[in-house]
Amino acid sequence: MSGPDPYARNCPSRRVLDRIGDKWTVLVVGSLSDGPKRYGEIARRVDGVSQKMLTQTLRSLERDGLVTRTVFPEIPPRVEYELTDAGRSLRAPLAALERWAVDHLDGVLESRTMFDDVLGA
Amino acid sequence: MSGPDPYARNCPSRRVLDRIGDKWTVLVVGSLSDGPKRYGEIARRVDGVSQKMLTQTLRSLERDGLVTRTVFPEIPPRVEYELTDAGRSLRAPLAALERWAVDHLDGVLESRTMFDDVLGA
Repeated sequence: MSGPDPYARNCPSRRVLDRIGDKWTVLVVGSLSDGPKRYGEIARRVDGVSQKMLTQTLRSLERDGLVTRTVFPEIPPRVEYELTDAGRSLRAPLAALERWAVDHLDGVLESRTMFDDVLGA
Repeated sequence: MSGPDPYARNCPSRRVLDRIGDKWTVLVVGSLSDGPKRYGEIARRVDGVSQKMLTQTLRSLERDGLVTRTVFPEIPPRVEYELTDAGRSLRAPLAALERWAVDHLDGVLESRTMFDDVLGA
């Protein structure tokens, strides 16, 4: 039997691929790369993320076993999010994606302008 | 002046990040990794992709300067898609993402089952 294959339509690895490449996943995992953080700290780091989207992303990461959510019994309760070992193994691939977007932004934007000019001519 | 920052809400690098992490982008770039291909060859490799989605993905990759579309004046005309240099530079990060999804699929699925069991209990 061969292993998972995201090129096969019904292989669940395709949906996993979809989840991990999501921009909010990339940015939230990135924001947790240097250690555990509270919800509000992540929200500030991932500028402009809506509460709904951040809550959904964190819950999905928790469900997939990539992030742990720890509630400290203080008043008021402190809640911290932290990458698991599996989550930490995602840091390098996602950081490479992030770096690509930063390094190639100018080229991509230039290409778009040219493409749209040609189509508009 | 600092460079692009996908953590900043209005930086266009965030939208670029969103595009390149899309599962169809990952699979289409992956399918072109070993050389130019015709539309139908890509469609067969990326099993289950709709014509609309494949056309959109290829057009977006072309607009971003990651893929060239070449029409050969034959009867019937042959159309080939090929990665540009920028597109080729995406191969490694996207292949790493793909590999992560394959390597960690079992763990992710197990974690989901446990998570859902606990919530359902």
